[in-house]
Amino acid sequence: MEKQSLVTKPLKTSRRTSRKVAHFLLAFVLLTCVLLSFDTFQESWNQSWWRKSSKKNVIFFVTDGMGPASLSLTRSFRQFSQNLSRDDILVLDQHLIGSSRTMSSSSLITDSAAGATAFSCALKSYNGAIGVDPEKQPCGTLLEAAKLRGYHTGLVVTTRITDATPAAFSSHVDYRFQEDLIAQHQLGDYPLGRMVDLMIGGGRTHFYASEDAVYGTRGSRADGRNLIKEAIDDGWSYVGNRQEFDALENGYNVSLPLLALMADYDIPFDVDRDETEYPSLEEQAMTAVNALTQATKDSDQGFFLLIEGSRIDHAGHQNDPAAQVREVLAFDKAFEAVLKYASESEVETVLISTSDHETGGLVTAKQVSKAYPEYVWYPQVLSATHHSGEYLSKLLLRFSGEDKVDFVEKTIFEKLMGIFDYTKEDTDELLNLTSIGELNDKLNGMISTRAQIGWTTHGHSAVDVNIYAYANRQKTWYRLLDNLQGNRENTDVGQFMADYLELDLQKVTQMIKKTKHSPNINTASLYHVDIDDYHNGMYDEQAL
Amino acid sequence: MEKQSLVTKPLKTSRRTSRKVAHFLLAFVLLTCVLLSFDTFQESWNQSWWRKSSKKNVIFFVTDGMGPASLSLTRSFRQFSQNLSRDDILVLDQHLIGSSRTMSSSSLITDSAAGATAFSCALKSYNGAIGVDPEKQPCGTLLEAAKLRGYHTGLVVTTRITDATPAAFSSHVDYRFQEDLIAQHQLGDYPLGRMVDLMIGGGRTHFYASEDAVYGTRGSRADGRNLIKEAIDDGWSYVGNRQEFDALENGYNVSLPLLALMADYDIPFDVDRDETEYPSLEEQAMTAVNALTQATKDSDQGFFLLIEGSRIDHAGHQNDPAAQVREVLAFDKAFEAVLKYASESEVETVLISTSDHETGGLVTAKQVSKAYPEYVWYPQVLSATHHSGEYLSKLLLRFSGEDKVDFVEKTIFEKLMGIFDYTKEDTDELLNLTSIGELNDKLNGMISTRAQIGWTTHGHSAVDVNIYAYANRQKTWYRLLDNLQGNRENTDVGQFMADYLELDLQKVTQMIKKTKHSPNINTASLYHVDIDDYHNGMYDEQAL
Repeated sequence: MEKQSLVTKPLKTSRRTSRKVAHFLLAFVLLTCVLLSFDTFQESWNQSWWRKSSKKNVIFFVTDGMGPASLSLTRSFRQFSQNLSRDDILVLDQHLIGSSRTMSSSSLITDSAAGATAFSCALKSYNGAIGVDPEKQPCGTLLEAAKLRGYHTGLVVTTRITDATPAAFSSHVDYRFQEDLIAQHQLGDYPLGRMVDLMIGGGRTHFYASEDAVYGTRGSRADGRNLIKEAIDDGWSYVGNRQEFDALENGYNVSLPLLALMADYDIPFDVDRDETEYPSLEEQAMTAVNALTQATKDSDQGFFLLIEGSRIDHAGHQNDPAAQVREVLAFDKAFEAVLKYASESEVETVLISTSDHETGGLVTAKQVSKAYPEYVWYPQVLSATHHSGEYLSKLLLRFSGEDKVDFVEKTIFEKLMGIFDYTKEDTDELLNLTSIGELNDKLNGMISTRAQIGWTTHGHSAVDVNIYAYANRQKTWYRLLDNLQGNRENTDVGQFMADYLELDLQKVTQMIKKTKHSPNINTASLYHVDIDDYHNGMYDEQAL
Repeated sequence: MEKQSLVTKPLKTSRRTSRKVAHFLLAFVLLTCVLLSFDTFQESWNQSWWRKSSKKNVIFFVTDGMGPASLSLTRSFRQFSQNLSRDDILVLDQHLIGSSRTMSSSSLITDSAAGATAFSCALKSYNGAIGVDPEKQPCGTLLEAAKLRGYHTGLVVTTRITDATPAAFSSHVDYRFQEDLIAQHQLGDYPLGRMVDLMIGGGRTHFYASEDAVYGTRGSRADGRNLIKEAIDDGWSYVGNRQEFDALENGYNVSLPLLALMADYDIPFDVDRDETEYPSLEEQAMTAVNALTQATKDSDQGFFLLIEGSRIDHAGHQNDPAAQVREVLAFDKAFEAVLKYASESEVETVLISTSDHETGGLVTAKQVSKAYPEYVWYPQVLSATHHSGEYLSKLLLRFSGEDKVDFVEKTIFEKLMGIFDYTKEDTDELLNLTSIGELNDKLNGMISTRAQIGWTTHGHSAVDVNIYAYANRQKTWYRLLDNLQGNRENTDVGQFMADYLELDLQKVTQMIKKTKHSPNINTASLYHVDIDDYHNGMYDEQAL
């Protein structure tokens, strides 16, 4: 009996436990069902909301030629020159999410054309390719696909609007130097018609031929056409100087489409910029953002806008650290302003910022003697310099006074560069140099050596570049992290934007098959001459 | 009437709607309550589980001197030399989460000592500081705090175990060159007693004085002590060669504490490593991981382990790209093996990998003539080279044969470096150079120029470095993202590990106040001599 009771008791307890467990399981299953059905409901609700009612803006920033070393360089320069604490970082720094691999289909080191085409068409192409694939066939771009889906579109740059980065979004040519043809595409002269609603930048020279009483004296079109006149006849607003730009009232008084060509070639480096003549990148960017916001106010679709800090690259090509830090800061200010706009916007808005490649082989350390180097570099040298090497070289070439030695030493070295420890050899060298490239190398070399900043090339390098991003919706922020956090291909950046805006790039590719994308010349031979000439020639000799 | 009915109807509808809304709201509130209470329950359950039962391992990797440019360099080298596709990336690449700002309290460019102290004590200190604050007072380290909390601890490096990075976790001295004193602390000769359970690396020279029949002939301790003998007497296992290392059976046959000193100075570069004499970093790392796993098998606490790819830095100092890519690959293999371990471990395990700084000013682009550079670099040049410059320079200095010209040209250039386009001047230069530093510069320069790889210094640079991470728990992965995703201070990396392991570094600081951290010598004068000598002297002249 005792034995039985001993056996029975545990059985009873076990049954009770089983019942409790069963109750608990039942409650758990019910609760799970409620939770799951709620989740499913929420998910499908979100999805339908997402699909049907979400209006979106994508603002894509390119820091042309900015590699990782530019960040610590500019950050420390800013801290030093503005007397900020060492934890006062750039706005960009606060939005880093990953890095991008940059090689093109033709080389381990990309150029800006292949770099931009990786973003615009989400495919790898060869160095020099503008909106064309490795077989030189036109590829549909993000900007075109967005426009065809009803988005408004814009391009903002500080170099020529026909330069590689904006061109790869808005035209299709075999080689980047075909800028006359690029300008035609940008204004709508190709199978798709006009795809761009707003352009602000330099590069007027490719829109008219030689002299024109109204538009300027430095047109360079070979075909004699005046695209500015043609554009105005087609309904474009045209802006060609600071007064006309100011009349746009920060974008609140713009009639689209807008063609704003603020310079014949590049807009000057920010360190040299006369603000009574040229707007800042921030002003250009916010004018574009506000104009596109106004234009899409009553639309179901938002806008796609490219904003490029174009001349970070030029400062890299010229190995000019004093110009570069100011270019990066000007970009950071533009990014900050657009970020503020996005954070306050009621429209779902995504910002992505990345570089096509690094330029110059910039290193914030340079060994200046055979002795083992101390671990320092000197931001104060960059603070003391008030102009780019490009600007100073032009001043020297233009000098027509009598005492050039005094001009070199008192004006160039001491007053404008803040350099007092120059030597007789430095002065003699500057007196004897006659090309802007050599003058520039000498002046920028004097700054770099004193600041202990190194450069290894006047071209590009293969280092991964940073990716920054922001979204004003948490769900989109997680989507950004899922797709662009970590180390990615440059094409992933373009593909993310296409997917996010639900764009079918292949469909656009079919539509632009018949684009005239190569002029009747031997482009191969031209290419080799021109790419060299191109970058060395960026000093804009005509502007002397 | 009509008007009234018109008014009434909507009112009725409105009341019905209100009732429906009220019901819906009630249902919604109830559901929310259920959800919230469930969440709260889950949260508190998770927290208690977290606090009470979570056993954790932290494995902290340091890629000494590896900047962002080393990644694309190594990735492309690997793709080329192993004939892989261009989207075949490193294991590290797949785990990038952010970047780290590196400046020290004394300079915009840190050294490895201040860099490691930023990790170990989570504070900025001056260049040269080993586990001491800017006032030269000892600061409690992660490793010490972890040990005091019951964790097991280990250090794995390929340079001297007394070098800056491991030293900053396990000792406290005013200047990094006080390696004899560092060795004493590491073995427990300071207020805390023994804090390290396992050490694997080089640096035997600092553990004994001049000759010792058993341990070697190159001891350099000034005080005549033999710390190896003392350690064995204190219960340490000692391993001093490959055979003894192999007897550890990948860590499954280890008696802790373990002192494994595999070389008097550095373990050779991976490209030069004789695997019958030295284990790889992967073998060292997995031996440590397995030994610590065994030791903590029945413990409530896991382990803290530092694994350093120490000599990426040396390849940078020597401007040797062929050695560097192999060092990074050897590190990537070690990371991959530990990653596999962590992904299979039942213990919650976190991996974090970052660099203290960049070394050499490496750029994967070098302009080799005045002409505008093409956008290329050549990984095949690195593939064709079978040894480091350091190794080849030693071969040359050791050469005692008759035909040195033939040796230079046929053996060094052609056979070992794969260079056939050398000139008579190259040969003459090598015949005339007598210092290992100059020989190394010449040989590495020949490689770098042919590969079109640039360097700007033999020291460090200021560029931000990458942060990589992995966790085998999703919750911890999100915590990693929250704390280390984006651009961070190097101290944030240390602080994260302290917070994650719930360590009180300040408490440890109080416990080590009385540490003897400076020898009775004029350290200031020594420092200046020694830092120079240190890096130039890393060629290990005694090993010739």
